[in-house]
Amino acid sequence: MDKTLLPETVRIFDSTLRDGAQGEGISFSVQDKIYIVRALDELGISFAEAGNPGSNPKDIEFFTEIKKVPLKNIKVVAFGATRRKNIPVDEDVNLKSLLAAGTEYVCVFGKTWDFQVTEVLRTSLEENLKMIADTVRFLTDSGRKVFYDAEHFFDGYFSDPEYAVETLKAAAGAGAVSLILCDTNGGTLPGKIRDVTEEMVRRFDVPVGIHCHNDMNMAEAASVMAVEAGAVQVQGTLLGFGERCGNANLSSIIPALELKYGVKCLPEGNIKMLTATARYVAEIANVTLDSSMPFVGVNAFTHKAGMHVDAVHKNPLAYEQISPESVGNERSFLLSEVSGRSAIIDKIKKFDPWVTKDSPITSQIINKIKELECAGYQFEGAGGSFELLVRRNLGKYRPFFKLHYYKVIGEQAVAGDNCTAFAQIKIEVDGEIAVTAGEGDGPVHALDIAFRRALGRFYPSVKHIRLKDFKVRVLDSKSATAAKVRVLIETSDGENMWSTVGVSSDLIEASWLALTDSFEYKLILDAEKRFLI
Amino acid sequence: MDKTLLPETVRIFDSTLRDGAQGEGISFSVQDKIYIVRALDELGISFAEAGNPGSNPKDIEFFTEIKKVPLKNIKVVAFGATRRKNIPVDEDVNLKSLLAAGTEYVCVFGKTWDFQVTEVLRTSLEENLKMIADTVRFLTDSGRKVFYDAEHFFDGYFSDPEYAVETLKAAAGAGAVSLILCDTNGGTLPGKIRDVTEEMVRRFDVPVGIHCHNDMNMAEAASVMAVEAGAVQVQGTLLGFGERCGNANLSSIIPALELKYGVKCLPEGNIKMLTATARYVAEIANVTLDSSMPFVGVNAFTHKAGMHVDAVHKNPLAYEQISPESVGNERSFLLSEVSGRSAIIDKIKKFDPWVTKDSPITSQIINKIKELECAGYQFEGAGGSFELLVRRNLGKYRPFFKLHYYKVIGEQAVAGDNCTAFAQIKIEVDGEIAVTAGEGDGPVHALDIAFRRALGRFYPSVKHIRLKDFKVRVLDSKSATAAKVRVLIETSDGENMWSTVGVSSDLIEASWLALTDSFEYKLILDAEKRFLI
Repeated sequence: MDKTLLPETVRIFDSTLRDGAQGEGISFSVQDKIYIVRALDELGISFAEAGNPGSNPKDIEFFTEIKKVPLKNIKVVAFGATRRKNIPVDEDVNLKSLLAAGTEYVCVFGKTWDFQVTEVLRTSLEENLKMIADTVRFLTDSGRKVFYDAEHFFDGYFSDPEYAVETLKAAAGAGAVSLILCDTNGGTLPGKIRDVTEEMVRRFDVPVGIHCHNDMNMAEAASVMAVEAGAVQVQGTLLGFGERCGNANLSSIIPALELKYGVKCLPEGNIKMLTATARYVAEIANVTLDSSMPFVGVNAFTHKAGMHVDAVHKNPLAYEQISPESVGNERSFLLSEVSGRSAIIDKIKKFDPWVTKDSPITSQIINKIKELECAGYQFEGAGGSFELLVRRNLGKYRPFFKLHYYKVIGEQAVAGDNCTAFAQIKIEVDGEIAVTAGEGDGPVHALDIAFRRALGRFYPSVKHIRLKDFKVRVLDSKSATAAKVRVLIETSDGENMWSTVGVSSDLIEASWLALTDSFEYKLILDAEKRFLI
Repeated sequence: MDKTLLPETVRIFDSTLRDGAQGEGISFSVQDKIYIVRALDELGISFAEAGNPGSNPKDIEFFTEIKKVPLKNIKVVAFGATRRKNIPVDEDVNLKSLLAAGTEYVCVFGKTWDFQVTEVLRTSLEENLKMIADTVRFLTDSGRKVFYDAEHFFDGYFSDPEYAVETLKAAAGAGAVSLILCDTNGGTLPGKIRDVTEEMVRRFDVPVGIHCHNDMNMAEAASVMAVEAGAVQVQGTLLGFGERCGNANLSSIIPALELKYGVKCLPEGNIKMLTATARYVAEIANVTLDSSMPFVGVNAFTHKAGMHVDAVHKNPLAYEQISPESVGNERSFLLSEVSGRSAIIDKIKKFDPWVTKDSPITSQIINKIKELECAGYQFEGAGGSFELLVRRNLGKYRPFFKLHYYKVIGEQAVAGDNCTAFAQIKIEVDGEIAVTAGEGDGPVHALDIAFRRALGRFYPSVKHIRLKDFKVRVLDSKSATAAKVRVLIETSDGENMWSTVGVSSDLIEASWLALTDSFEYKLILDAEKRFLI
């Protein structure tokens, strides 16, 4: 590695909202996109490529909305193609849409590979060079800073190196502020990416960037090796979302660059937010974050082999490449009582500072957690339910109500009426009975409404509760309609947020358990506040 | 890359059954292990590390059983540690177990890193060298061919290069047939792995191998770069299973070596079995193969962006690094907003070969798909529902039954009875009525049972239908209990598999829609079969 080429700083360019949206099962609403841009901004990412206004008119709405959001680090980038062949650049409709996005930066891609020009574009090599130059010039003259994405750069370079370089010259000559070398098909070996990138870095005064796809599982290595060769912009998607096998995973590349090479990617200290941001973006995308994802996955620092667990207790360096805290993640141990304890005790101490590792209550709670985890519970995303579990076991809990019964009836919607479900519930509080009913879209919605009415008679504050998030996960999907489900609910009362969980083979029961935990948590918060006053 | 170092052939060493078994959620029965060894043997893998008889006595049963299985390519390898400190080698119980496995090859690991010797083993640097030499010598003298796994080799080398080399010398001097350099913590950059491997290849006459972990998402790149530097054995797991972030993924490394470097890993032509073998091993491991896994995932050659779909129709080389057939995979096109007409027409043509891009029916179907996608449908994973949609629009469809009503009642389970839900349904077939009921775990299960009974009166073949998979996704989870849900069902009749989808804000209705599609699909299959006879 030639140390003189390694940059001090790299600008991270995230394309979760554009290339990432090509991944299977990924689709973002305008609101989702705004949430993600804000999260990437907080993390300190330099650029967010957020849409292709030419091919997707819906994206214009996003570009209008995002202008109202104050951002401190990130620049939002609109993406598009070079002008169509054989037309004047100012008549290209897609380029007009690109300008309409009103962003300071735009990213345009053009063809590098002679085969792509003649076979896919079906035009001449000269016209392609003109398309690139015209487009970059037109956008630059319109006041935009232009990133030029050289599509299929490496394949093009191996097919006809001179022509590939000509395309970059066309973009640079027309004012592009950065030349991005793309391994669009993801089939170039990392060593070759490094060598060719080095040649381009030496050849051009304009900064060079890299954009890799993961079709050989080597996109992250290829990206950092391009940085070794002098690339100063890395394009990818935070969680590796993208077409086929995905784009280069930025949540791997950022810590590798910062912690292994000492190359700055984020504002000082922000790398500690990496894990939380990765998990948040996965949530918004409604995707389960791969538990074995390097650096940010829940298992990235999880030890299972007995020998490893023992060694890590002696010194974490034994089986950890970096400290989990450095990327905001944490260490855990699978099926290891001894180790599990210290984490749990930390949580118990919140309610009873005198509890120790050896208190009988510690074993009691750990056993209860194990039992529930066997039944499909997970408390990682359900702090509210975990707290209730600890309180119940510490005896610091009294039930707020007693359930007599609930009944839910569902049927097809009757014409002219949206409701498909009806629920009835009977609860008791201090000897007083409430029987209420609710109609809703589906059985859980109806039950939620009925329960809220019943409980509200005794505890008016439950009216302030808003369910913010509702997730259903089928645990053993092979059991089909008899499968166990886990329901996670996130709740807010305007001041606090908490999350609760319920598990059952009956979706209604699982939802009921998560709902009651959620409402009880609110009532405890209120009771404690009264106590403090 | 120094071409003189690149070997012509590499021996692939799979550790799915040993290191892979450390992955979360992975556990193999003896029978599972036998199935996997046979599949790897068919594929042409050279070695299968299949257990650690010292730490897991159950493994002995496997080693006994596997001897009865005729194998043509693969050698089964038993794994263990060097002898314990400060005891004579022939008194080490674990080594006795290792011999008891009765394999031709064994793999033993020892410490390279001074820190690991003093902090984790808590012995002297000299004693560690003796432990390595004694162990390798003892096993060699007992007739075993010994692979020596140099644990934490790279970390050890960077900490104390001389001592690291001494440990390899101890193993080589005692008769090891191969020295495997392990990046146990997965934190070494690929370029460094290449450089250090090259040095060891130049230094030792004994063949050198590589064993990488994926903690930076770079295990595959690091492995092939070690081969560039002369490593002739690559250790990993077929699907990347392993502790923390997994081991190097052999299903990526094998095609990279064979198709990009021209290095032989498998018997001639066997690479075409790669995808089928990968999916089979995932089945045995009871793991869903990551759909975006390079080369072997179902999306590895799936195109979604309209522009890509069009280009691939012109020439697949446009957006594919290799042909999917070369690894036994296949090309597909996702049906979605972003994708163009060509993907959809391919599917319509199955039912009406005369349909073209410009037929009115094409627009009609595309508009219907768009409308349903707006409502939350996704046909990507629901080929059965998509086919029904096309048939309905082509007029090639008659309903098999008419629904009068269904009703579902849910309530808490009564003591002594598991059922929490009850469903009643009334359907009509050719003027005949069936009213049936079902009890189940939750409302969907009860409805499934009742519906099956009703339909089974008219179409007995529905009894052969088995729901294999049931997934629920909450689409706009911010709407909480009133959120829309998408239900995906996968069904089998023993011969065929198909998947269907339903969307509604009522989970019961969404499930009902997916269920009816699933049952109708089966009835169409049956009707077509009758027609053919």
